[in-house]
Amino acid sequence: MEQRISLITLGVADLPRARAFYESLGWRGQQVEETVFFQAGGLAFVLWHEDDLADDVGLKRNPRHGFRGVALAQNVRSSEDVDAVVAAARSAGADIVRPPAETFYGGYAAYFTDPDGHAWEIAYNPGFPLAADGSLTIPDFG
Amino acid sequence: MEQRISLITLGVADLPRARAFYESLGWRGQQVEETVFFQAGGLAFVLWHEDDLADDVGLKRNPRHGFRGVALAQNVRSSEDVDAVVAAARSAGADIVRPPAETFYGGYAAYFTDPDGHAWEIAYNPGFPLAADGSLTIPDFG
Repeated sequence: MEQRISLITLGVADLPRARAFYESLGWRGQQVEETVFFQAGGLAFVLWHEDDLADDVGLKRNPRHGFRGVALAQNVRSSEDVDAVVAAARSAGADIVRPPAETFYGGYAAYFTDPDGHAWEIAYNPGFPLAADGSLTIPDFG
Repeated sequence: MEQRISLITLGVADLPRARAFYESLGWRGQQVEETVFFQAGGLAFVLWHEDDLADDVGLKRNPRHGFRGVALAQNVRSSEDVDAVVAAARSAGADIVRPPAETFYGGYAAYFTDPDGHAWEIAYNPGFPLAADGSLTIPDFG
């Protein structure tokens, strides 16, 4: 598993309110369906409805030892890389909360939680190319 | 507030266990007192005891609408920049959970929460220089 992070996704209760908050701080995002993407250096900062995010991760929202409302992600270069990272995570003691599977956007992804329950998505998304250095640039959805 | 993220800090219950997990995935961190820093592209991924992190943020750990165990951070170039970003955040509706103050490491920092309770630290840390592009490189603590 390469030592990098590609996205930070925050579960939010009210997407327009959350987007307005960050945009009032000067950030500029692009909304794609029910998600807002912000380019943040070499990574993407993402706002998404917390129920949808919890559903996607495969964890219950908000109980004491459940979903924290935050998911980290690492995008990789192929479906095979997803499988390989998930296998490594399982070997390291991760709980595979969502086994690798094809996604609605034509990619392939899985989620695991670390020993403290922090959620990580490992994803192959052919629509989000990675630079040679592993950095991710959000495509222009306009 | 510039559109970038400098650190991702995860609160953990057992620091050696958490470090071992990430290192077993191939990541390599540097421990500094009770914190482990991992370089992750242009940002730092940090593990820290969850009680200490919660104390630092100024939120209670884990109640339903309390601290999620995750803090995002943006490092800026001066104490004045901390004050300016915190003022902008307050104007945007943030709750300033820890007002700007000098830190034990010779810096200056504050925390706010966004409308969903996600915690952000805004910090000036003279020991962590920022590149012209805003990227942060962890110093060699060795």
